[in-house]
Amino acid sequence: MTAPYTLAVHGGAGTIARGQTDAAPYHAGLRVALAAGEAVLAQGGSALDAVVAAVQALEDEPLFNAGRGSVYTSAAQHEMDAAVMDGSTLAAGAVAGVRTLRNPVQLARTVMDSNFVLLSGDGAEQFARDHGFEAMPPGYFHTEHRLAQLHHLQNAASAAMQMDHVAPLDETRKFGTVGAVALDSAGHLASAVSTGGMTNKHPGRIGDSPLVGAGIYANDQSCAVSATGSGEYFIRACVAHDIHARMAYAGATLDTASGAALAEVGRLGGEGGVIAVDRQGNIALPYISAGMYRGWVRAGEAAQTRIFED
Amino acid sequence: MTAPYTLAVHGGAGTIARGQTDAAPYHAGLRVALAAGEAVLAQGGSALDAVVAAVQALEDEPLFNAGRGSVYTSAAQHEMDAAVMDGSTLAAGAVAGVRTLRNPVQLARTVMDSNFVLLSGDGAEQFARDHGFEAMPPGYFHTEHRLAQLHHLQNAASAAMQMDHVAPLDETRKFGTVGAVALDSAGHLASAVSTGGMTNKHPGRIGDSPLVGAGIYANDQSCAVSATGSGEYFIRACVAHDIHARMAYAGATLDTASGAALAEVGRLGGEGGVIAVDRQGNIALPYISAGMYRGWVRAGEAAQTRIFED
Repeated sequence: MTAPYTLAVHGGAGTIARGQTDAAPYHAGLRVALAAGEAVLAQGGSALDAVVAAVQALEDEPLFNAGRGSVYTSAAQHEMDAAVMDGSTLAAGAVAGVRTLRNPVQLARTVMDSNFVLLSGDGAEQFARDHGFEAMPPGYFHTEHRLAQLHHLQNAASAAMQMDHVAPLDETRKFGTVGAVALDSAGHLASAVSTGGMTNKHPGRIGDSPLVGAGIYANDQSCAVSATGSGEYFIRACVAHDIHARMAYAGATLDTASGAALAEVGRLGGEGGVIAVDRQGNIALPYISAGMYRGWVRAGEAAQTRIFED
Repeated sequence: MTAPYTLAVHGGAGTIARGQTDAAPYHAGLRVALAAGEAVLAQGGSALDAVVAAVQALEDEPLFNAGRGSVYTSAAQHEMDAAVMDGSTLAAGAVAGVRTLRNPVQLARTVMDSNFVLLSGDGAEQFARDHGFEAMPPGYFHTEHRLAQLHHLQNAASAAMQMDHVAPLDETRKFGTVGAVALDSAGHLASAVSTGGMTNKHPGRIGDSPLVGAGIYANDQSCAVSATGSGEYFIRACVAHDIHARMAYAGATLDTASGAALAEVGRLGGEGGVIAVDRQGNIALPYISAGMYRGWVRAGEAAQTRIFED
């Protein structure tokens, strides 16, 4: 008999463009990530190792906006953010604005074991070199469709009015972030997140992804959360910690807490979604955009993936 | 009759070195900041403008670790962080790792009016130039005693064992951050924070100060908070949002909520303090280090400043 565990992943939320292209590669990418994370959990591994493995798989898949396939800044460069958090110790590690890391989530995991929580920019790159991480050339992160998105946004008088649809979610308005949350067989929770940020973002812009309490939070007392959406609104609403707080202080269920936290994002004018798992293994995958690439698996059950409601 | 308002400021928390030097200049610096903020509030100005004015005064005072007088990184440079948050709109602005800004809090205030919440490093500097901020030369931020602190820490086999005392709080272990919180006569709350970070910090290290929910939070429903302490622990405990959440979801008082949030920092192994004001004008200034430079003033009352308990 397999000890109970739960894993959920996401590949970003965004505006609908249903039926425009083949959704199969996206489902396949989510399944690869679920398999990578489940391989850890099925062997009795930790939730922390599982979410890192799942996010690493999503970073390696160019279809998702993290690691390889990250979007371009307004300066036509890549600036990636990532974070991990261990619910059993509240230890966290994060990096912001890294440019050469094949797997930013691995660097965040290494930062977690240092005296720091968040390292950014050149200092984070220096820390990576000091810890033996290879510097990938800019070409590694390049994808034609991301560069086309940048040029499209920079040339469009009103980007929102002139979108073409190149993916199941409209990639020019997609909130590209990948993430994973897990409950392991020892009852511990963990979260991970990684992103290339938003296309055409200002250099140096940091979104919610690497910020504990905004885009990521994990606490064995309550839940593990990984968010994706219009980052500035998620920061202002402290979404990930707010879900924990509603459970810990108001006795809310995971469903109620995550729905209420997202509703606050909506009230402020933002959109996006979260994936969350609680200490009982309940899963919540709510979003207030038209769709969210997502998947989940439990011990002894078949993995599931979705983009839209059905 | 003056409409009711409340303002509190802090100049950092740290390990005691009581009686080693003259405390008067620190009290005077806090009073200058209180006067700058109160001048705004007494004329019916906003809490937001008041906390920015107060923090700007603290940045300009070289005794405090923010703006002029900021500590040195391990690379013997200055990397400053600052943030503001408006409790009436949940709007926030923050900068991390800026090197040339005379008043980082002013840049954070300008970021608040942009599409971003947090800008870092070179991108934040570029944003500053685009918005007309003057670049100060590195010499502007230099102070002999901060450079001596860096050399002392870098040369000490065990810095904690070999401290000399050059200020009322032991500056080599002080968690140098300045901050302000205010309730204005219209009933709105706001917070601001600014810091040079920690002496000998790794380049690119971002602490709690510019992170909404960690070092700063403001919400008219509950309270305004500005924190100072061992930043990594404040990030992991989401201190500022946790105080809000305990009030909003558990019905805790400001005193109880801020004490409980700081206790969690202590449980994790950190130290420091917060200043907080609630919508009724109650003030809480708790700390779990040996002292905290702090001051407060209410409409029609004389300003007060303290370093230790008495």
